[in-house]
Amino acid sequence: MAEKRHLLDVDDLSREDMGRILDTARSFAEVLKRPIKKVPSLRGKTVVNLFYEPSTRTRLSFEVAAKRLSADVLNFSATASSVEKGEGLKDTALTLEAMGVDAVVVRHPVAGAPWLLRQWLEAAILNAGDGMHAHPTQALLDLLTMQERLGELEGRTVAFVGDILHSRVARSGIKACRAMGMQVLAVAPPTLLPAAEIEGVEVCYDFDAVIPRCDILYMLRIQKERQKEGRFPSLEEYTHLYQLDARRLGKARPEVVVMHPGPMNRGVEIAADVAEAPHAAITAQVTAGVAIRMAVLFLLLGGSEGGEKVA
Amino acid sequence: MAEKRHLLDVDDLSREDMGRILDTARSFAEVLKRPIKKVPSLRGKTVVNLFYEPSTRTRLSFEVAAKRLSADVLNFSATASSVEKGEGLKDTALTLEAMGVDAVVVRHPVAGAPWLLRQWLEAAILNAGDGMHAHPTQALLDLLTMQERLGELEGRTVAFVGDILHSRVARSGIKACRAMGMQVLAVAPPTLLPAAEIEGVEVCYDFDAVIPRCDILYMLRIQKERQKEGRFPSLEEYTHLYQLDARRLGKARPEVVVMHPGPMNRGVEIAADVAEAPHAAITAQVTAGVAIRMAVLFLLLGGSEGGEKVA
Amino acid sequence: MAEKRHLLDVDDLSREDMGRILDTARSFAEVLKRPIKKVPSLRGKTVVNLFYEPSTRTRLSFEVAAKRLSADVLNFSATASSVEKGEGLKDTALTLEAMGVDAVVVRHPVAGAPWLLRQWLEAAILNAGDGMHAHPTQALLDLLTMQERLGELEGRTVAFVGDILHSRVARSGIKACRAMGMQVLAVAPPTLLPAAEIEGVEVCYDFDAVIPRCDILYMLRIQKERQKEGRFPSLEEYTHLYQLDARRLGKARPEVVVMHPGPMNRGVEIAADVAEAPHAAITAQVTAGVAIRMAVLFLLLGGSEGGEKVA
Repeated sequence: MAEKRHLLDVDDLSREDMGRILDTARSFAEVLKRPIKKVPSLRGKTVVNLFYEPSTRTRLSFEVAAKRLSADVLNFSATASSVEKGEGLKDTALTLEAMGVDAVVVRHPVAGAPWLLRQWLEAAILNAGDGMHAHPTQALLDLLTMQERLGELEGRTVAFVGDILHSRVARSGIKACRAMGMQVLAVAPPTLLPAAEIEGVEVCYDFDAVIPRCDILYMLRIQKERQKEGRFPSLEEYTHLYQLDARRLGKARPEVVVMHPGPMNRGVEIAADVAEAPHAAITAQVTAGVAIRMAVLFLLLGGSEGGEKVA
Repeated sequence: MAEKRHLLDVDDLSREDMGRILDTARSFAEVLKRPIKKVPSLRGKTVVNLFYEPSTRTRLSFEVAAKRLSADVLNFSATASSVEKGEGLKDTALTLEAMGVDAVVVRHPVAGAPWLLRQWLEAAILNAGDGMHAHPTQALLDLLTMQERLGELEGRTVAFVGDILHSRVARSGIKACRAMGMQVLAVAPPTLLPAAEIEGVEVCYDFDAVIPRCDILYMLRIQKERQKEGRFPSLEEYTHLYQLDARRLGKARPEVVVMHPGPMNRGVEIAADVAEAPHAAITAQVTAGVAIRMAVLFLLLGGSEGGEKVA
Repeated sequence: MAEKRHLLDVDDLSREDMGRILDTARSFAEVLKRPIKKVPSLRGKTVVNLFYEPSTRTRLSFEVAAKRLSADVLNFSATASSVEKGEGLKDTALTLEAMGVDAVVVRHPVAGAPWLLRQWLEAAILNAGDGMHAHPTQALLDLLTMQERLGELEGRTVAFVGDILHSRVARSGIKACRAMGMQVLAVAPPTLLPAAEIEGVEVCYDFDAVIPRCDILYMLRIQKERQKEGRFPSLEEYTHLYQLDARRLGKARPEVVVMHPGPMNRGVEIAADVAEAPHAAITAQVTAGVAIRMAVLFLLLGGSEGGEKVA
């Protein structure tokens, strides 16, 4: 990361970069267990949350992370209507740069928007989700959570289950897991899978058949509007074939880890009791998210300038 | 409060607890008169304002209070529509907890919501108003204001005037005043009073008759939609019988204290000139609100961990 | 400024006051070039952004400025609908004052609103734009930008081009430029000019004729709704006569400075390539805006109380 200025997607990161982010996040996770969960590392730095899609949970996670590093945080939420009559992404970006912000955390409905920003800005750009494309901090927090539960990840098997086609969580997550040397399964009905093969990923339509092989069951959120698009016949049928319920969990390995990026549709992709079973690492993912975002902000903004060390 | 973790309603508090909160608030009120109105007591703590109803004034009051204690503040405003399609209260609460927040200040249209949160969270929960049920920091700031004006409250007489039935301010306020040994009158038309007797409270329909007996006239806000519900025939008639105007104020004791939780409907429950008369303690209530919220946050989050003393 | 408590419009300022603000801003502009862009000058002070009109860029600029002075910032955004059913400006102001805020930065659609606030509040009031009336920090940041590009301003010529009639930017900007001893031209079709003469300002309808005389071309934003009001026949015709495009820029002095208050309508009042030409100081204006707002907040809140000096 020493020379890296941005975090746009996980494939910009070498395995060594990922290792460094994960190690840094682990040391911040220790800070987060203290009564005073704050370090002065980014005092005097300004981080903007530039959100063109509503996402309270991701925005709050970045905001908590930045504040615990003692950075100042500005929130900029643009709705579709304000974008229409207001200034475009480029002028907004140039305005923020001219104000001297140090990092721009951007969520945008259009895939590629953070790459456009990179052309215009000196500030560090952190992709917090662009269209159906990428969500690298989610992928990194997922790796951190998996390591906390399972230790070494090389050779482990993870199944991403559900709407692979429309999911930036799956797209970045699959790349990150592959980079760590994991076996990756994509489990979904054919209509929720990309038309093209995903390199190095085994595709399965039959969830029940693969459950016993998996160390991690990663359940994706189902957008109910996919049914109207004809992606699956009914929520009932989807649930019947792909919901992780207690019966299916019973066929998994005893130490299996259940993950979900949130927010969950309890009773659709995951049964309510499974969401609260000891196998579920779903709240652990949220905690890991703060540590990962602290690590990425620290490494992009503070690490190379001799800023104060993680205390 | 030493063992208390939450502030849900005033009846959780002993008279000794209340005294400790009021004393602490008084020392913070001194801090608020200094040029630098800030103490480091809650540095490194994170307070979330979780507001499911719009309320700029209460949210700002908690935000100012937390910032003057040097806590970090996150604002989460959920509108009805975002709640519909978003995650439920439970998942939001678990997400905030997993992010390591120390206190959740919650306002919710459903009575009892803060008690639900208590089942799920380790963080301190502060009820900032739930449905028509409770609003304990309002009751405490009202006591602080009354003490500032009148000194000892035991034996004093307070009349809550107006929409007792729908008012969480009245519900918590009556409990708090009763706990301090005050005489409490509820003054309203029968349609704006609860069907059941309120323990220890004297009900009157005739405002004029009781004015001379009162040390405090506490005017409640009238929601204009109550007229459509048939709770009173017209604003004109309500105003005629229950508005505190200069004529009625003239019949009160010379040192009477006029209070209102805000925002006021000038010309409905209170005349514009009375709102600005020297008897009115309405802006004093706002000032007391910051001190009370500082005290409650300090005692719930800082007091027991050897945090820095109120300077 | 020593005895000044508010910044309502530029005509409250003597030329000496302006000089002091510009000098202070220049020293803050140096702070903004450091890796740690923060000074402790306003620690413990609270600044409220009270915005009755949406304006992300101005609100962010004040928020960045206040945070870099270590003040606490509260954001209060009122929409038309919340104003309707909520409390009026006066009660909101009294509530903020009672919470102990030190400065109120106010934007309001009604001309004169900040002057009303002044009658009610002890806190410093900063006008961030009232109706079509005044926008003094914009005028000051424009002066700072002009000085950075041109040095001494006395005797220089500036043309304000476009919708002079509805523009608070032009109204305050013209006053500020006149106070600095500049020649001021107002260039617009007759329907976008005030009916009355503007004192000391030369009016021209023919943009091409005056371009060679100008040191600064200040392009104003065109609100497209003005066309519906019959202020000009069509955007095409407006653009034909008044857009600053490469052809017109070619007729200007080589060192001419192009300015715009943002957000720009590229292709209407300014051509896209001109907005990015080296003559354009448009992002420099944004940077100057942070420095000016720091200077004004510092001088109004910190200067007279022996607060820590600009480091």
